[in-house]
Amino acid sequence: METTYPVEDKVGSMLQKGGEHFHPGLSVDCVIFGFHDNQLKVLLLKMKHADKWALPGGFVYKEEDVEHAAVRVLESRTGLSDIFLRQYHTFGAPARSDRKLNRELLESVGMEPHEGHWFLQRFITVGYYALVDFSSAVPRPDEISEACAWWDLQEIPLLTMDHNHILQKALETLRKQLNDQPIGYNLLPEKFTMPELQRLYETILGKRLDRRNFQRKMLGYGILNRLEERKQGVAHKAPFLYSFNQERYGAALQDGLQQGW
Amino acid sequence: METTYPVEDKVGSMLQKGGEHFHPGLSVDCVIFGFHDNQLKVLLLKMKHADKWALPGGFVYKEEDVEHAAVRVLESRTGLSDIFLRQYHTFGAPARSDRKLNRELLESVGMEPHEGHWFLQRFITVGYYALVDFSSAVPRPDEISEACAWWDLQEIPLLTMDHNHILQKALETLRKQLNDQPIGYNLLPEKFTMPELQRLYETILGKRLDRRNFQRKMLGYGILNRLEERKQGVAHKAPFLYSFNQERYGAALQDGLQQGW
Repeated sequence: METTYPVEDKVGSMLQKGGEHFHPGLSVDCVIFGFHDNQLKVLLLKMKHADKWALPGGFVYKEEDVEHAAVRVLESRTGLSDIFLRQYHTFGAPARSDRKLNRELLESVGMEPHEGHWFLQRFITVGYYALVDFSSAVPRPDEISEACAWWDLQEIPLLTMDHNHILQKALETLRKQLNDQPIGYNLLPEKFTMPELQRLYETILGKRLDRRNFQRKMLGYGILNRLEERKQGVAHKAPFLYSFNQERYGAALQDGLQQGW
Repeated sequence: METTYPVEDKVGSMLQKGGEHFHPGLSVDCVIFGFHDNQLKVLLLKMKHADKWALPGGFVYKEEDVEHAAVRVLESRTGLSDIFLRQYHTFGAPARSDRKLNRELLESVGMEPHEGHWFLQRFITVGYYALVDFSSAVPRPDEISEACAWWDLQEIPLLTMDHNHILQKALETLRKQLNDQPIGYNLLPEKFTMPELQRLYETILGKRLDRRNFQRKMLGYGILNRLEERKQGVAHKAPFLYSFNQERYGAALQDGLQQGW
């Protein structure tokens, strides 16, 4: 992209001048997954003006690529660029826009918006999900939020608008992707054990997997290098360390893991 | 949906009053697949005001569900309701909007639009693909088109704007879907032979498949009923007829064909 856009939007000017700057009635929402302490986590924002949490999102500048807007949101909230990011669904139900909530937000910053205010219109949102390195991400709230934090997938609170639905659909997409494509490169440290990889799959799928079947299937994909070292600091039977074979991982991401037609 | 919308839009009033009626900067485009004469076909429209073909598409009314807009386009162009329809990608590159072409369209119906005219703004489009029964569909052009016709997938002409890209992405989605989900219920007649089913897969994949492997894999899915009759009018070795087992087909559509994790 040659054009640059402000990574951070100042809430006052954004809400005042949004109608001039943004594509009307369009937003992006990002489901940002990270993996830590054997748990799949999602990055959420605590809104300032309401007692609810929300997915990180933003608006699309008039001449900005929609995908670029998602990259911008990701960078703003995590400090990370060059993230695994995928568009998975556009949410277009008219009832999804909560105009009362949006009016309250405008009023909370001292505005008295007229009915036709750009922020009080119906919004369509394009959903993206991202897989990020938990330890590298530095969560940062946006201007309308007071906190930005990782939540365990099992403990997601009631979110604003249709954000629980948007999150659920991202998780379903990720689960389907597990059958077709490798996962883990962006979520695990460079070196990991087979039990750590298995735990990642289990937390995404929400169920336990058989250890031997998992190992057989994983090794069968040919995307792992077994390293000549074992996990440190483990009492006995220290497990081998693995890393992803970058070339084969990339090819599997491109062509799929399963033998297709 | 309780609200009803006109199935057909009159081009004059649509272009004049669109700014009042439609969600700004948003359209839907539909890649409608049918199967006939052993060929996968796509329904295209010949534009009146330009020497190009286009995918069927339309705008979204201000309080209309985006998916409903796609259903409306499908019904308008094929006469069919209750169609297999799936959203697959939203196209959000700023360069995709062809404002010169849109201005020419407005001028072709006698309008002299100002710069801020709603139809000359940037549009995001939500892509849907549909699988329809070729023999039941009655192709009908819309008000800005002079023809609506099926094209062989191998003979698709240069389309307007990014429509070749939108079509290609739908085809890629359909190919991926073949690995996960059954296909054919909406594309084949109620009774069909194994060679006809194989030909459907081959035309989607754009390659020949081994006859015995195909049959083994297909029967292994458990979604077919072999009927007690054979194809009529075939000289010798008339092939068996099959139909889809509706219950198992539905379950496979829901849960996937492959043994997942």
